[in-house]
Amino acid sequence: MDVISVIRTKRDKGELSPEQIDWVIDAYTRGEVADEQMSALAMAILLNGMNRVEIARWTAAMINSGERMNFAQLSRPTADKHSTGGVGDKITLPLAPIVAACGAAVPQLSGRGLGHTGGTLDKLESIPGWRALLSNEQMLDVLESTGAVICAAGDGLAPADKKLYALRDVTGTVEAIPLIASSIMSKKIAEGTGSLVLDVKVGSGAFMKNIEDARELAATMVGLGTDHGVRTVALLTDMSTPLGLTAGNALEVRESVEVLAGGGPRDVVDLTLALAREMLDAAGLKDADPAKALADGSAMDVWRRMIAAQGGDPDAALPVAREQHVVHASESGVLTTMDAYAVGVAAWRLGAGRARKEDQVQAGAGIELHAKPGDKVTAGQRLMTLHTDTPEKFEYALEALNGGVFTSPEGTDFTPNPIVLGRIA
Amino acid sequence: MDVISVIRTKRDKGELSPEQIDWVIDAYTRGEVADEQMSALAMAILLNGMNRVEIARWTAAMINSGERMNFAQLSRPTADKHSTGGVGDKITLPLAPIVAACGAAVPQLSGRGLGHTGGTLDKLESIPGWRALLSNEQMLDVLESTGAVICAAGDGLAPADKKLYALRDVTGTVEAIPLIASSIMSKKIAEGTGSLVLDVKVGSGAFMKNIEDARELAATMVGLGTDHGVRTVALLTDMSTPLGLTAGNALEVRESVEVLAGGGPRDVVDLTLALAREMLDAAGLKDADPAKALADGSAMDVWRRMIAAQGGDPDAALPVAREQHVVHASESGVLTTMDAYAVGVAAWRLGAGRARKEDQVQAGAGIELHAKPGDKVTAGQRLMTLHTDTPEKFEYALEALNGGVFTSPEGTDFTPNPIVLGRIA
Repeated sequence: MDVISVIRTKRDKGELSPEQIDWVIDAYTRGEVADEQMSALAMAILLNGMNRVEIARWTAAMINSGERMNFAQLSRPTADKHSTGGVGDKITLPLAPIVAACGAAVPQLSGRGLGHTGGTLDKLESIPGWRALLSNEQMLDVLESTGAVICAAGDGLAPADKKLYALRDVTGTVEAIPLIASSIMSKKIAEGTGSLVLDVKVGSGAFMKNIEDARELAATMVGLGTDHGVRTVALLTDMSTPLGLTAGNALEVRESVEVLAGGGPRDVVDLTLALAREMLDAAGLKDADPAKALADGSAMDVWRRMIAAQGGDPDAALPVAREQHVVHASESGVLTTMDAYAVGVAAWRLGAGRARKEDQVQAGAGIELHAKPGDKVTAGQRLMTLHTDTPEKFEYALEALNGGVFTSPEGTDFTPNPIVLGRIA
Repeated sequence: MDVISVIRTKRDKGELSPEQIDWVIDAYTRGEVADEQMSALAMAILLNGMNRVEIARWTAAMINSGERMNFAQLSRPTADKHSTGGVGDKITLPLAPIVAACGAAVPQLSGRGLGHTGGTLDKLESIPGWRALLSNEQMLDVLESTGAVICAAGDGLAPADKKLYALRDVTGTVEAIPLIASSIMSKKIAEGTGSLVLDVKVGSGAFMKNIEDARELAATMVGLGTDHGVRTVALLTDMSTPLGLTAGNALEVRESVEVLAGGGPRDVVDLTLALAREMLDAAGLKDADPAKALADGSAMDVWRRMIAAQGGDPDAALPVAREQHVVHASESGVLTTMDAYAVGVAAWRLGAGRARKEDQVQAGAGIELHAKPGDKVTAGQRLMTLHTDTPEKFEYALEALNGGVFTSPEGTDFTPNPIVLGRIA
């Protein structure tokens, strides 16, 4: 087997054989295939595609590159959720405790933000004392004792994916559906969950800008999960505008706690409950009622125990940014656009996200929205508040918002997108 | 400027701007753009192409990455030739002395063989004492004193191409017409020749397997040369069968000397004279008669002085391989196929070529043909003789010839390809 013949096969629009796929993933993980060879192959895959058989084998080879976890010894069925990433997407924070309160075990191996989309670990780290890094044993302990755990994925899961993901990030080969699908699913399958609900985002703030691509990605991932014995369902959900009214680490934790307390923005509550129902169904807990877990405070109890089990103080005051800047509406009418990508980039520029993996994030930085698409606004009212510890960035953040906010004349007929756009099982 | 936006532009079928091209070539030469980023871009170029404006700028950027030579101080007009590479292609050896004998200065900066195609420097190094490496000053001295020089290209010419060529070789991105054309032409233009004749090979033994691709490559290169003020002409020539009756280093030198002595195989003589006429025309020496330079011995005189000027002994016996194996015809009829690729790979396996840049070649190894397509053969007659110092490779070489030689029943109507298939100016 040699790498040039593998690259040529895909370059010339051929189908990679199972042997070619197994060999190239293994050789790349061991360093025998060089980065410059894998990036040429990744570009050929991006431009010429892979069929379902190839994607399944590619995913299996990435799973086999590392260890597999096993939740079989847990007393509850496992239910996992993965989001393809968006702006203001704090759903994991209220969702994991709700589903755990309903009787499932919810292992959430999460990541950090890169670029304009936030990371779940960055958000939770704004809680004083909270730690993302757990050993496998600690993770299972928290999961067994509280029903939910949100922590960093260990290095042992799908190391081939870890290496390939970092390579794709610097070679313009991120946006390939076969590579996105196999990257997500190899980690989730290696993690060993029994069921998985995918939240595939669609819109300006998501990787997938249109519903067709999102549907293809979702169907590919559902197929991969199902083929590996994981009960897998995907919801296609709207990411044309930020989720909820906050984008930024501590700001989103605050909003998540509001949801757990029975309040919070309608779209966050609706999406959290829709995903919770899917997770409980997939885990075989069809009679559980997630709305009740919110109403009776049992989800909040799980949240407090889960945060405390990882060193966090659920009662501690959350960090607040040193400076604020308020943006006012310049005209009256109906707000028709509050663009997710524009808000995401602005929050990132304020310090909520990082440009390079080694950057620090500001816990208090981000954006609070005071209106969402469909709301009536009056000239001069507050539209959003920008938060940062580095006020010299206000102008740079405002630049990103240029063209991202539109108001139409009063009386305009406008219906915001529903939060759930489709379902694939 | 950042490399990911450059990669994305080409990945998404866009046109690279002049600024993007200048920046990426310069940054790659300096090491700021990494190999894995350039290989992803090379694959995107291979699959999505470049238009004429992009190719011209890419070539100019590679020329500007290094030094430019200047032959303006020479007393004669310069005429250069480049072949895209084939099996048994020893044409440079008789051609350079013939054209020099007719009054042009012929600087032949040549390469070594890699894979199944031979390299001019490897062939000449089978002459005892001959040295390929000259300083720029030594090169100009030999050129001025003998009219012709064949030597290795210095490191200073188009270093971006040198780096990119090595990268393409290991990443499956060799076969891209824009990259092949810009690679060849950046070196030739940087070298500073006034005129250039391109020998673009077509057929199984060449990079270009069909005439359409060869025509596109030739037209691209002629356009690039013309745009840079180099009088450029291309001949499309047949490479479905080896040139002449030998493939291998010393074997090909012997055949070249036969041509210079007024003999040699018809196809080698015809192609050498056709290319010589084009070079002399392009150099403005329209009245020169290359056939006369062969007949009157003046070309042989230049050959002897040129070899001696680089330390070689033109009278020394050439190396002979230790072992021979004769292949006989199994049936009588008309030889219709003597496949160039099969013969090239067999000669390579016998030791005439190298698999890696650091390998040594055997001076005596190779294949002698005793029949060519169109010849009548009789069962039992000699078809070819294999030469090697490593007889354990005979079987491996014979394997490569399997299916590469065909004989049709006597009386079959068969006309071999003409040697020159087309001309582009």
